[in-house]
Amino acid sequence: MEANQFRDFGKAMIDYVANYLENIRERRVLPTVEPGYLRPLLPSEAPQKPDTWQEVMADIEKVIMPGVTHWHSPKFHAYFPTANSYPAIVADILSDGIACIGFSWIASPACTELEVVMMDWLGKMIGLPEEFLACSGGKGGGVIQGTASEATLVALLGAKARAIHHVKKEHPDWKDADIAEKLVGYTSSQSHSSVERAGLLGGVKLRGLPTDESNRLRGDTLERAIKEDREAGLIPFYVVATLGTTSSCTFDNLEEIGPVCNVNKVWLHIDAAYAGAAFTCPEYRYLMKGVEMADSFDFNPHKWMLVTFDCSAMWLKDPNWLVDAFNVDPLYLKHDQQGSAPDYRHWQIQLGRRFRALKIWFVLRLYGVENIQKHIRKQIGLAHHFEDLVKSDDRFEVTEEVLMGLVCFRLKGQSNEVNERLLKRINARGTIHLVPSKIREMYFLRMAVCSRLTEKEDMDLSWKEVRESADDILGE
Amino acid sequence: MEANQFRDFGKAMIDYVANYLENIRERRVLPTVEPGYLRPLLPSEAPQKPDTWQEVMADIEKVIMPGVTHWHSPKFHAYFPTANSYPAIVADILSDGIACIGFSWIASPACTELEVVMMDWLGKMIGLPEEFLACSGGKGGGVIQGTASEATLVALLGAKARAIHHVKKEHPDWKDADIAEKLVGYTSSQSHSSVERAGLLGGVKLRGLPTDESNRLRGDTLERAIKEDREAGLIPFYVVATLGTTSSCTFDNLEEIGPVCNVNKVWLHIDAAYAGAAFTCPEYRYLMKGVEMADSFDFNPHKWMLVTFDCSAMWLKDPNWLVDAFNVDPLYLKHDQQGSAPDYRHWQIQLGRRFRALKIWFVLRLYGVENIQKHIRKQIGLAHHFEDLVKSDDRFEVTEEVLMGLVCFRLKGQSNEVNERLLKRINARGTIHLVPSKIREMYFLRMAVCSRLTEKEDMDLSWKEVRESADDILGE
Repeated sequence: MEANQFRDFGKAMIDYVANYLENIRERRVLPTVEPGYLRPLLPSEAPQKPDTWQEVMADIEKVIMPGVTHWHSPKFHAYFPTANSYPAIVADILSDGIACIGFSWIASPACTELEVVMMDWLGKMIGLPEEFLACSGGKGGGVIQGTASEATLVALLGAKARAIHHVKKEHPDWKDADIAEKLVGYTSSQSHSSVERAGLLGGVKLRGLPTDESNRLRGDTLERAIKEDREAGLIPFYVVATLGTTSSCTFDNLEEIGPVCNVNKVWLHIDAAYAGAAFTCPEYRYLMKGVEMADSFDFNPHKWMLVTFDCSAMWLKDPNWLVDAFNVDPLYLKHDQQGSAPDYRHWQIQLGRRFRALKIWFVLRLYGVENIQKHIRKQIGLAHHFEDLVKSDDRFEVTEEVLMGLVCFRLKGQSNEVNERLLKRINARGTIHLVPSKIREMYFLRMAVCSRLTEKEDMDLSWKEVRESADDILGE
Repeated sequence: MEANQFRDFGKAMIDYVANYLENIRERRVLPTVEPGYLRPLLPSEAPQKPDTWQEVMADIEKVIMPGVTHWHSPKFHAYFPTANSYPAIVADILSDGIACIGFSWIASPACTELEVVMMDWLGKMIGLPEEFLACSGGKGGGVIQGTASEATLVALLGAKARAIHHVKKEHPDWKDADIAEKLVGYTSSQSHSSVERAGLLGGVKLRGLPTDESNRLRGDTLERAIKEDREAGLIPFYVVATLGTTSSCTFDNLEEIGPVCNVNKVWLHIDAAYAGAAFTCPEYRYLMKGVEMADSFDFNPHKWMLVTFDCSAMWLKDPNWLVDAFNVDPLYLKHDQQGSAPDYRHWQIQLGRRFRALKIWFVLRLYGVENIQKHIRKQIGLAHHFEDLVKSDDRFEVTEEVLMGLVCFRLKGQSNEVNERLLKRINARGTIHLVPSKIREMYFLRMAVCSRLTEKEDMDLSWKEVRESADDILGE
């Protein structure tokens, strides 16, 4: 493909995407295809000779769109939001055009340096303590990870390296494997499944601790578990606290957990994947009180802050635990400026990395902090509006306090089976899409405000779908 | 930003990228900035109110470009190529517009299904045995990972799960940690640093074995190591063989390694990150003879096959070792079609994933297999052209057989220090960029053919730079 064809093709795709997003309400949010739908639509092998770009464009509606779940439809309320914004899309075009691999400073200084500064911008925006920021001049700093699950694993590996180092000082004869076997980490039973998975991947024990009646992990529960495990000869080394759980958007009590971690020299990682973006608004920062006691913090601008996937923002107070533990530099990766700027390959699982800081830069500049705050506040307002609608109908109950853009609700006094039928009915009608969750054997529905295009009328329509589905189910 | 502004901004960026790539030869390949150059060019905080997109566009040349290492300049010969092509850039615009997260089939069926079919297309193109392909109807199939380092780690985790499972059948009373401590994997001393790192991350021993005089890992070396370790009470479980090492583009002897792995029930992973793309041309497939004995295979279309980063193509004969070992499904991720299509989140480290199969689809359709073969053959031809130039000058020697797009060379009979001075001189002149490597204490220079825009004249210019730098160094 020549540059002139690219100019035409690229511009046609810009228009296609603009049209797609501006008219997304008209599409059925969840596709009706069956598994295996796509294979018969394509040849069984790649073509020997090139097709034209016009043929490829025409196939998007034929082959791809029938199988797309439209995450950016205001009728999509499943999981949590994933970000999409025009500035981020344009930034990615530039990132793909430059297409450098930023594994070391010299491999593209702008890629590393913009990331350092953008992580400072973001950290200041959400009110992180100075110690986490590179501009403080200390050890701390931020890095873009792919996902919050990676950040949890990276922090676990840093915590593991630190714990082994400290134990070896006291027991120089113990082998790494013997120490690793004694390590135990903690998280709440409500934390994301990726935390449990990080334990499996990292090969260490990770205990899911019970929460209080509001589904929060409390300090005394953690303290008791650490004491128990110490007495059993184990070595507590890592805690993951969640700010905004996936099931119910609950916030663990950092003010209680932090001191327990600090006293016991246990690495505290905070997973604020979804809710972290809300700390852009000062009125929500009370929910992260105690953050200064953490060793690492992560939230996803690619969820609620309009930066397209993947862009998970992670800060570490002392990245050296990672850098030193996994540094295996061959000659072809060494360069003269080592040490005077971060070589981000040591901060992550992979070697390669895209120029993702451009997305943050474009989004923050082209929205401005004020419009990002406006976006967060509007979506939380829409959740409260839906909450009011649910509460206005005696048949329903809201099961969790609504703090962010998520409303958890169910048919009051009805069995899990009836609520499960309600969910299936709503999704089967095809207008909106929700997913359920379950806490302590209670099944409920989750209404997440996802699309940045969502307006009050969209929430009214979603409520109508829920209400009418309930009429059906209860009338049967 | 409104849709209409996006149309203007996006199209302006398409033109910017086309102009950038078409005129890339005019830019200095390696920037001259010092660490810390960028921070003073930006405000210390994100702006409260939005800037205009025209202001952002203007800052690209002011802030970003002075710090960019131009990987797509025909004067860039460092590391290995990273891909860049117009069809891939346009596919990413669509991927960013749809912006679905494909962690399960239902989360966007097209995202999963196109990936399954594209991995079959790619597998057929490079001549992989049927058992690796989903279309064979067996257990096997492909998945897009971010990087080859991730694939190495994922395969290691699968191998670990399989080994623990098998050992437990014989020793039901052994604990996982006790078994993990006995596990030992193998790779050649020439394999990529990320293999050693996967061992560190996965918490298992990984031995670097010596190679033959041509830098290849041989079967008898592996067999001896396995026997030794067995006798010492260890459990051999994993081998990483490399097809196209980073230092010298050497190919391990699969025909010898494969049977040793199979007899000893050791998982064989093949890392063909760079060279795998060459198997699109049947005349290079002799270099992967024995591939049918592997358990997993990975190559990076994002290196040499014109699909932009990140897109690492991995196939597994039996993905269930991964799926079962790390499956931690909460209710909000379950869906009715589970089991009838892959849920790719179980095949990778992260939970989230972009719609990356679109890039493969666009590139394969808009180039066609023939043009991809042409691209590979042309770049190998350019490497041989450079090889001839080096051999025409008595002061130089080519230190490794040139098989792909990499020429390893040095000043013959000169010390490492002199060759190191040569490299520094070449890079300091600023016209081209190379990185060195070292094997068995011999330092040499690596000339990789990287940019898809590279022509014979570019290689002539690069040779002139090398030759004149040698004149300088030897004349001093």
